[in-house]
Amino acid sequence: MYKLYDFLPSGNGYKVRLLLAQLGIAFERIEIDILQGESRTPEFLEKNPNGRIPVLELEPGVYLSESNAILVYLGQGTNFLPIDRLEYARVMQWMCFEQYSHEPYIATSRFWLQHNMANQYRKELLQKQAPGYAALGVMEQRLVNHPFLVADRYTLADIALYAYTHVADEGGFSLENFPGIRAWIDRVQAQPQHIPITQE
Amino acid sequence: MYKLYDFLPSGNGYKVRLLLAQLGIAFERIEIDILQGESRTPEFLEKNPNGRIPVLELEPGVYLSESNAILVYLGQGTNFLPIDRLEYARVMQWMCFEQYSHEPYIATSRFWLQHNMANQYRKELLQKQAPGYAALGVMEQRLVNHPFLVADRYTLADIALYAYTHVADEGGFSLENFPGIRAWIDRVQAQPQHIPITQE
Repeated sequence: MYKLYDFLPSGNGYKVRLLLAQLGIAFERIEIDILQGESRTPEFLEKNPNGRIPVLELEPGVYLSESNAILVYLGQGTNFLPIDRLEYARVMQWMCFEQYSHEPYIATSRFWLQHNMANQYRKELLQKQAPGYAALGVMEQRLVNHPFLVADRYTLADIALYAYTHVADEGGFSLENFPGIRAWIDRVQAQPQHIPITQE
Repeated sequence: MYKLYDFLPSGNGYKVRLLLAQLGIAFERIEIDILQGESRTPEFLEKNPNGRIPVLELEPGVYLSESNAILVYLGQGTNFLPIDRLEYARVMQWMCFEQYSHEPYIATSRFWLQHNMANQYRKELLQKQAPGYAALGVMEQRLVNHPFLVADRYTLADIALYAYTHVADEGGFSLENFPGIRAWIDRVQAQPQHIPITQE
């Protein structure tokens, strides 16, 4: 059985939890309290030298890290990953966008706010507003007239972007001016076997 | 013929140029001077709403963005992308690592230093030293006893990480204490049809 090294509030961990649930794959979840330094112990660094969750243990001693790489591993050969070459590349495009242009602003802001670091990072939180809203704008431009990010159906791209977008308010980002994103969130939540971010 | 919207000093653009050269695929390169705002014009934003190069125009009006997604698109079915499921996921893992844990520190520092913004970003440059060296440390741990990042042969993972690592000094990062990385750079440069970052 897969073991998932995870931190329950993490959207990156949630991506993997959500896909595993929707694929009907049982797994053992192991909580790593990153606030207590548990992702930087020598024991954990043997699993992922980069010191980050999530990590999926595929079989004893074989570890895969990076949430979007885990999604691709699990999604191969399923309906969550298109076969068409361009659609496949578009899923990659959105997942790269998520890690580079979305997560560092929206997820990081949420992390600071959730863990009472707002005063410590007051200036940085302000600096993250413009690029975070820019990322939401890029998503809105697609979603205002398409049901999903790629190929007009639910794929790994939606899982990757949904994870932190649907809790953007917890990072200080309002979705009020993004009706396309809000309707998409409803569509994602209506998918079979959907689970919320708080579910282990 | 493919059109590549590119900025010559960019390592992200170079990844695509290098792979195209090594695949023997002819392309037209179109310089977008990002310093002059050419990646944020209405015309360019129609190609990539996220306003970044590189963008590959696959056929007239069909655009693919995100350097690593372009690598995957071009690499499908070639020796640069392993077929084995776990090796394939490891390529994804390293490419995600590159975008999240490496590029924002090493490439961004290089950009500021190259374009005479060192004074303006003095504090940020200092802040990027520790995470940048941490990323190099993660690479070193692999490369000190393996010839390449994945599967002991040259793959897209090496192209993605080589782009900014081999010019890390231009970002203020010394490779002196990373003998594994230095030997790997030599191996990458010895690959057939290798081109330098300055070659159009």
